[in-house]
Amino acid sequence: MDKLDAIFAPESVAVIGASTKKGKVGHDIFANILFGGYKGTLYPVNPKAKSILSVKCYTSIANIPDPIDLAMIILPPKLALQAVEDCIARGIKGVVIVSAGFKEVGGEGLIIEQKIHQMCQQANIRIVGPNCLGVINPSAEVSLNASFSNRMPESGNISFISQSGALCTAVLDFAADKGFGFSKFISIGNKADVDELDLLRYYHKDPDTDVVMIYMEELARDPEQFIREVREITSGANPTHVLAIKSGTSDAGALAAASHTGSLAGPDAIYDAILAQAGIIRCQTVNELFDYAQVFASKKALRGDKIAIVTNAGGPGIIATDMSENSGLKLAQFTDETIRELHRYLPPTANFHNPVDVIGDAARDRYENTLATVISDPGVDGVLLILTPQSMTDAVGTAEAIVNIARNSVKPIICCFMGIVDVSDGVKLLQKNHLPVYHFPESAARAMGALYQGTKWLSRRTLPQYDIQYDSKKAEEIINSCLEKEQYILGELDGSRILQCYGFNTLKMELATSRDEAADLAETIGFPVVMKIVSSQILHKSEANGVKVGLETAEEAREAFTEIMADAAAYDPAAELDGVLVQQMAPSGTEVILGVSKAPMFGHAVMFGLGGVFVEIYKDVVFSLAPLGRNVARRMIKRIKGYPILTGFRGQPPADIEMLEKHLVSLRAMVTHHPVIKELDINPLFVHAEGEGTTVADVIITLEDKS
Amino acid sequence: MDKLDAIFAPESVAVIGASTKKGKVGHDIFANILFGGYKGTLYPVNPKAKSILSVKCYTSIANIPDPIDLAMIILPPKLALQAVEDCIARGIKGVVIVSAGFKEVGGEGLIIEQKIHQMCQQANIRIVGPNCLGVINPSAEVSLNASFSNRMPESGNISFISQSGALCTAVLDFAADKGFGFSKFISIGNKADVDELDLLRYYHKDPDTDVVMIYMEELARDPEQFIREVREITSGANPTHVLAIKSGTSDAGALAAASHTGSLAGPDAIYDAILAQAGIIRCQTVNELFDYAQVFASKKALRGDKIAIVTNAGGPGIIATDMSENSGLKLAQFTDETIRELHRYLPPTANFHNPVDVIGDAARDRYENTLATVISDPGVDGVLLILTPQSMTDAVGTAEAIVNIARNSVKPIICCFMGIVDVSDGVKLLQKNHLPVYHFPESAARAMGALYQGTKWLSRRTLPQYDIQYDSKKAEEIINSCLEKEQYILGELDGSRILQCYGFNTLKMELATSRDEAADLAETIGFPVVMKIVSSQILHKSEANGVKVGLETAEEAREAFTEIMADAAAYDPAAELDGVLVQQMAPSGTEVILGVSKAPMFGHAVMFGLGGVFVEIYKDVVFSLAPLGRNVARRMIKRIKGYPILTGFRGQPPADIEMLEKHLVSLRAMVTHHPVIKELDINPLFVHAEGEGTTVADVIITLEDKS
Repeated sequence: MDKLDAIFAPESVAVIGASTKKGKVGHDIFANILFGGYKGTLYPVNPKAKSILSVKCYTSIANIPDPIDLAMIILPPKLALQAVEDCIARGIKGVVIVSAGFKEVGGEGLIIEQKIHQMCQQANIRIVGPNCLGVINPSAEVSLNASFSNRMPESGNISFISQSGALCTAVLDFAADKGFGFSKFISIGNKADVDELDLLRYYHKDPDTDVVMIYMEELARDPEQFIREVREITSGANPTHVLAIKSGTSDAGALAAASHTGSLAGPDAIYDAILAQAGIIRCQTVNELFDYAQVFASKKALRGDKIAIVTNAGGPGIIATDMSENSGLKLAQFTDETIRELHRYLPPTANFHNPVDVIGDAARDRYENTLATVISDPGVDGVLLILTPQSMTDAVGTAEAIVNIARNSVKPIICCFMGIVDVSDGVKLLQKNHLPVYHFPESAARAMGALYQGTKWLSRRTLPQYDIQYDSKKAEEIINSCLEKEQYILGELDGSRILQCYGFNTLKMELATSRDEAADLAETIGFPVVMKIVSSQILHKSEANGVKVGLETAEEAREAFTEIMADAAAYDPAAELDGVLVQQMAPSGTEVILGVSKAPMFGHAVMFGLGGVFVEIYKDVVFSLAPLGRNVARRMIKRIKGYPILTGFRGQPPADIEMLEKHLVSLRAMVTHHPVIKELDINPLFVHAEGEGTTVADVIITLEDKS
Repeated sequence: MDKLDAIFAPESVAVIGASTKKGKVGHDIFANILFGGYKGTLYPVNPKAKSILSVKCYTSIANIPDPIDLAMIILPPKLALQAVEDCIARGIKGVVIVSAGFKEVGGEGLIIEQKIHQMCQQANIRIVGPNCLGVINPSAEVSLNASFSNRMPESGNISFISQSGALCTAVLDFAADKGFGFSKFISIGNKADVDELDLLRYYHKDPDTDVVMIYMEELARDPEQFIREVREITSGANPTHVLAIKSGTSDAGALAAASHTGSLAGPDAIYDAILAQAGIIRCQTVNELFDYAQVFASKKALRGDKIAIVTNAGGPGIIATDMSENSGLKLAQFTDETIRELHRYLPPTANFHNPVDVIGDAARDRYENTLATVISDPGVDGVLLILTPQSMTDAVGTAEAIVNIARNSVKPIICCFMGIVDVSDGVKLLQKNHLPVYHFPESAARAMGALYQGTKWLSRRTLPQYDIQYDSKKAEEIINSCLEKEQYILGELDGSRILQCYGFNTLKMELATSRDEAADLAETIGFPVVMKIVSSQILHKSEANGVKVGLETAEEAREAFTEIMADAAAYDPAAELDGVLVQQMAPSGTEVILGVSKAPMFGHAVMFGLGGVFVEIYKDVVFSLAPLGRNVARRMIKRIKGYPILTGFRGQPPADIEMLEKHLVSLRAMVTHHPVIKELDINPLFVHAEGEGTTVADVIITLEDKS
């Protein structure tokens, strides 16, 4: 038996801090359990009351004569601490602390919360909260509404996790309005113990839960563990589909970042990475969350991107077509047989091609025949059916027909019954049979798109990992020698040497400290050369006119040295100028940026994107946290919008994408071996044609100053 | 008196084709008018019935003894035609034809529709439909529900225009569910006569309409007239705010377009241009349409982008903050005085900075004092207030306080009362007082963003037009000489000559037909030169290896000629090769693309975007139709995402944006003078630093083959 069973399906519940006063949380939660028809036994605890709502009250949990599974605690922090001690002594299995005033207010509240957590950990008891709305399990066998919302939702196969209690009330109201059913519903508040991952594990094993909706404020645990576990939960033959709204303030980005990567690695980008890697579909609004949950709850997969649309009205058919295409779907091309078949059932004024218009006066039969025909077409992966109430419309009959056809097909059918009142009986029939149904065609089409996204995740390819050798010992030596010199910002010379240890191809380069040395080095390296200022203070060299390319002669190298030093001094008179780097000219290629940034909460995030303005203005970059192997790397590269630039654009040969994948894996290995690396930008990296590798054209590495 | 008054506020209505059979449209519309409490006089017309729903029935409209304002016609096309003749003879002022079977089925239906239109035009009568849902006017003085929806919406200051009848029913149900009120509601079907522009003119004059929602399928009239008139309607001191959902199939783009511009000028991009130029806010979903309508209906403007958020729960406050920032808003920084003031009213655990958290146990007073304080802060342009139902929450009291404060402030207050049931009395109070209120914080924040967008449109700058001289006569000569030669695709030589007439700076260039000529021309033009293949069949020269840049010597020019001709022949053996263009090397600059495409329905659309992959992969382009003067041009340039690249990026000098504006205006003039131009691509145009102009690096112009 899972310990969370004591929370979700307790045989007995004690409400500690139950109150006789209506409107008080301690009263309302007790009343909600009592009047919610809880199937177990309920005990109020309050030293001052004889009974509450006619139920005998106990002065302390110690005095209850029977075994108790779950304690709901509604008491201020100090009393709550005492109550938890009593609960442990009493052998209680689970605790939900509803009250606020703990970690979120700091000080003593935080200390008490930590103490409670320790005590319960030792006693092997799980805690939900503090500072939460409570727990709801609407299933007929339990019927527990241990929350301060007086609405018990209907029973269904979707479970909900909310960090915010406030949102819960609104979501319950919204769900009631939509006739939406839940399997389990929980608010986790401060997450002193039970958090999203615990619940996802539990829900994944729960036969009554197929879809989980999360409202997440922040992830307070190791993201790598979260990603590793959740991606198993969302994958495989029996996946749990997870949808999340994640809110995170946009201004919390690392303002003082020395690298592009660092400045782009805001919490929003990082959570995007976590959710994508875990296979969680991110939603922007509560409407989207509900719309998508419905379609995943129907337990069908959209095996391909070709859909058929069946409608009895032109306008909504057009909207559905548009939104489908915007959601990554395509309209299927029917076979001749399908079209011949449709001619048998539909009047000549109908549209026999996709989107099929069965015409306004369609009754049940026309819908039934059309749906049965198009869903059998081998080129159709799913059907979007639109019904608008018109004079001959038979919403209930059509719904019955849809339910019958859906029962015998593996392909998903998503319905849009427009209008709320006229079609409500049909809608209810569809809902009862777990057929997703929406009020507007754009919602239906968007949900279909989300379903396709989900199916793609489930059927993603997994290739064997690359076997790459690294010289981490040498890299360690370089890093240590920099740290000894208290040099925390590493320029191209040291950066390139470290990258070489991880399989990157770098350019020949030497530091010149005089005009003549620059000319000599250029001769040795071979013309043409590039020359760049070297100064710890000048991070963006081109802004300081500190880069000159295509220098062809010794004389040009000499002059370039003088100009670069002069311009750098003018740009930042306080900068310490080490000299000018003389570098082999990079062979041309597509400019990309690779980077790493370390966030305090999340560890290292690896970034990939196209270089130049693509990163700076279009912000067309993507992040991944650990684990980052070959498959994650491949999906990262494909996720940027500019991906076609790499696959052979305008007669250009395809770029060496495999080498890029290896580099991303290697960068991950590098920061795992050398966690002192705080930020890294390889900008640009030139990617050459397939099989021809890449060249690092510039690199900057920042180390953590732990002194 | 406006002729549409007979449609929206008739003193008497005849229902021609009224029926005694429940479920028939002719019965239901009659019943809906009758039971909807219509304030005028209602006459059923049916040759076979004595009375319908107890109301005396007439065999023909000719027999009704009293004057009739409006005829609702529910009859098949041939009988409808006869009925319209009778109506005209009877002196009726307006006609609504509900029945289908006209233009949309083609053939005889189309012919009858055209005949009806002609007859009514001659008789000076307006027609709505055919193929429409009807007309609704919920105002107490009229109370007309001449539709086949049995729901009469509440009265409000928002009017609705729908092309689709099907959507109307759904929208009415949705509105009823949201407690949403309408001023006028109309479905226009085939638009034989009355269309969106007619109704926008009427609604603009209507004192009861402040906001118009449109569901548009296609615009069947001159877009220039539409833009000119609607931008006046949406502007000025007494604007009508217009919101629209526009659906248009994505695959209808010009597939065979010879230019980038042509291939990007799909209907979606064109409608984006029309709506943006007309000042119409485009919505993607019906939810958005309703959310935005509510905020504009409140008749307040958001003068700046700084908002304050007041909440009693952390989570929703974070969501609101995020979505506000995503919607182009910023969180205001409070003055010290505001923060001091807040300390007087809020408990120490509150958050005194934006977003202000008044803490879960806030009752009315805390909300009232906080709202009054932050709205008085000079740095705050508007307030988003979030209330989540908690134990001390006083939804109605807080709503009262908000209403009082809103009454005395010019700044908008947008509310989010979370939960549907618990807070419903507060929500109703807010709605009654025209305060926009939403269920979820992201909807509220998005609506605030839309309001800001609307206010920006109202306060847009209008600068005097540029005075540019053109040599349209010379351009005409060049075009005519090409047409005479049956040359419809003009390459760089002719294209550049035409562009010169319109003030573009082009490069020195000559056509070489032999190796030696190429070398000679290069000497004359001056090294380095660019060489390009010239062939009407090869439009994308670089794909054919047909461009060589930076040629420095006569020998290089000679070799380049041979290679270019050989590669072109290999690329397309059927291509006719005119020779190789030898061209002055363009001075460097930012690559942009300017283009024109002529669409059959819309006329010429002028495009602007960044060149290269920005246009091809990121599709970061924007279109405008006529009228296109200096101000539209300026807003076009600012609308692309890559705009910062032009304003001085990474130490680059700002580009000559004024010259770009002039070019856009000039291109518009060019295609107005020479409508035979079908497509035009200037790709790339190099934009130099401010004041230094631009250089055309390549151009292709396609003329219409009218033979």
